Amino acid sequence: MGRQRRLCQICKQKGQRRESVVYMKEHRLALCEEHFKEWFERRVRETIKEFKMFKPSERVLVAVSGGKDSQTLWFVLNKLGYDADGFFIDLGIGDYSEESKQKVLELGKILGKEPKIVKLEQELGAPLPVVQNLVMGSACSVCGRIKRYHFNKVARELGYRVVATGHNLDDEASSLLANVVNWNVKYLARKYPVLPEEKGFPRKVKPLVKLTEEQIRLYADLSGIPYTDRSCPMGDTANLHFYKGIMEQIENHARGTKYRFYFEYLKKIFPIFNSLKEELVKGELRRCTVCGEPSPSEVCFVCKLRERIKEKSPS
Amino acid sequence: MGRQRRLCQICKQKGQRRESVVYMKEHRLALCEEHFKEWFERRVRETIKEFKMFKPSERVLVAVSGGKDSQTLWFVLNKLGYDADGFFIDLGIGDYSEESKQKVLELGKILGKEPKIVKLEQELGAPLPVVQNLVMGSACSVCGRIKRYHFNKVARELGYRVVATGHNLDDEASSLLANVVNWNVKYLARKYPVLPEEKGFPRKVKPLVKLTEEQIRLYADLSGIPYTDRSCPMGDTANLHFYKGIMEQIENHARGTKYRFYFEYLKKIFPIFNSLKEELVKGELRRCTVCGEPSPSEVCFVCKLRERIKEKSPS
Repeated sequence: MGRQRRLCQICKQKGQRRESVVYMKEHRLALCEEHFKEWFERRVRETIKEFKMFKPSERVLVAVSGGKDSQTLWFVLNKLGYDADGFFIDLGIGDYSEESKQKVLELGKILGKEPKIVKLEQELGAPLPVVQNLVMGSACSVCGRIKRYHFNKVARELGYRVVATGHNLDDEASSLLANVVNWNVKYLARKYPVLPEEKGFPRKVKPLVKLTEEQIRLYADLSGIPYTDRSCPMGDTANLHFYKGIMEQIENHARGTKYRFYFEYLKKIFPIFNSLKEELVKGELRRCTVCGEPSPSEVCFVCKLRERIKEKSPS
Repeated sequence: MGRQRRLCQICKQKGQRRESVVYMKEHRLALCEEHFKEWFERRVRETIKEFKMFKPSERVLVAVSGGKDSQTLWFVLNKLGYDADGFFIDLGIGDYSEESKQKVLELGKILGKEPKIVKLEQELGAPLPVVQNLVMGSACSVCGRIKRYHFNKVARELGYRVVATGHNLDDEASSLLANVVNWNVKYLARKYPVLPEEKGFPRKVKPLVKLTEEQIRLYADLSGIPYTDRSCPMGDTANLHFYKGIMEQIENHARGTKYRFYFEYLKKIFPIFNSLKEELVKGELRRCTVCGEPSPSEVCFVCKLRERIKEKSPS
């Protein structure tokens, strides 16, 4: 992607001259603002249809974090006419969470849709920085589990059968690479832009998987979508950034490899691993005896956490 | 690998103090010359046994190029007591081939074994630079096909059921990465340190797959093995070098990943792809009607080449 002075190729076809706002090398395509936005939205619509993510009649719960990807997703789904609501978990990570929430509320105003907001402190009895001190594992993995729990729970409680997240092509290709390098087969067997509804879990979909970070940022900026660029102060994203850097080098070495690596995986390799899933992903899900959510153990991770927080609190 | 001033850990265990010649970070192991050589040789012997490459009673034909890897392989197999002979194809690439041949002859003298030498010009009627101009495809791919043809042919004619090549861990891990990034499934289904004898092909083995380039170079230098460091002037190795560089970055990011990536592949993933081989690798081999070697087409690649060279030559 670059912003050299080129003419928009769509305008050119129509006999018009308009300067492009973007040149996408991997597609050899220069587009003006209007046609870039059109192209972007078409690509999201095509992705939703190609992977049978959801029908226009289905309500979609968008997991928004206040960052560019999920904010753009919420915005573009509404622009495409889908019935998409925002859902934000206030993790209670100081200024960071505050700023993120403000961006989500701002976008809600633009879309005329009130976002659902869950405050972790109310749910669990403590914000993430406190929770993190009580458990083993990295902050990101603990936070991920807590967020997934609440996506599932809130979606079920409010009657959404679909939860959408803002994962983009860079996220997916680089995490695929990291998981391939470590042959994390369990993960590979579930790496797909749609995970079907099952055992009390809503369908999970990633409508932005055909778009790069740069394309999403440009679309957000051109569309005036509010978002925060701050990264989580608790997050240890060194590994993710490392593999994004490696993927960029590979992309620069042979243009188009990033896309091919991910989508050829989906086409040729995923079906192989997925067919072995039963062997690979052992252990069945039951219901948590406390909250009733799906869980591999008798009491789920979040209920155990809640109990622990109660024990530790001085009340 | 580094050469800091550390003491040999094996000597230390025996109550002796000897300075190390190498510290291998990935094994956390510092060794003196004597114990490094022992370690290296043991690792080759273990690899041969683990992958059931060949028995001590089997004669092995080593494909030597004059470079450090194949020269070391020929040397170490003899040191371990195997009956290993060197086989060199003189491609006729000017000084490069001449110097390579000299190194092979030198090592033959050290081992007291005359290498088999085939001169491409005699076999085909022209050296590689001329052949290359007559066909499509990169020099490396043409050369690879010609070499494989002659390894097979010479092994059969001279009664060797095993051909060994000097591929090392860096070669294997980086080519695995390149093939994974492009999901070259046909290749992945055959990526193994032993390819069994079949349909007129000798068994192909790679006894150095557990050793890195650096370890092999050090062993060669310490053992006084003659080799050339020149790389082929016709070769376009940019892609291979690129992926070696990427693999090194990944290794530096998380020590031990290179080894794990390759050997976990062999253990967990290769069996899956290999079981699908029949579907993936279509087309059966028959015999070339001219030379009788295995070939996917009626007349094999090399016989076609020979014919073409004859047509073009002014005789």
